[in-house]
Amino acid sequence: MHIHEFQDMMRRIYFQRDSKRGIKGTFDWLMEEVEELGIALKGNDEKALEDEFADVLAWLASLANVADINLDNAATSKSDSKCPKCQKTPCKCLFSK
Amino acid sequence: MHIHEFQDMMRRIYFQRDSKRGIKGTFDWLMEEVEELGIALKGNDEKALEDEFADVLAWLASLANVADINLDNAATSKSDSKCPKCQKTPCKCLFSK
Repeated sequence: MHIHEFQDMMRRIYFQRDSKRGIKGTFDWLMEEVEELGIALKGNDEKALEDEFADVLAWLASLANVADINLDNAATSKSDSKCPKCQKTPCKCLFSK
Repeated sequence: MHIHEFQDMMRRIYFQRDSKRGIKGTFDWLMEEVEELGIALKGNDEKALEDEFADVLAWLASLANVADINLDNAATSKSDSKCPKCQKTPCKCLFSK
């Protein structure tokens, strides 16, 4: 699935609610889902873990809809098939990130 | 860009480092990027905001690579063009989420 298709799907299903909740409320939900992902990563239920990754991606797309950001454009412009800092693939940056 | 293309690109560029850092260290970076996104959402620099969305997506894909989760499959299986709870588009769930 294309990133923009996923974001559009989230818009069709949830934008009515997302826009009423606003940026702050939607960000809070994203943070909660990231924390749930952190818990799932400590377990060994692969299906639950997959669900938590999907939830974080869904809330990130919801938040992008409320903030009027095109997630596909953002991703493409940021990463041009190489590390934007060292310009290498794989990344050869000296710092640990 | 397809979700799996983006995840594959992150794997080519960063997996060597991501796998050494491990799940806990990569999750910590994701959390830091989410917090930076929260700060950018309070400002009015649209380019910086787009960059922060891209960073969160990139670290989510990195984390999925380390955890051996296919983000595209996760997203597709979770959301079948309707709310998985109320089965409606747009979502008509009674709770506020």
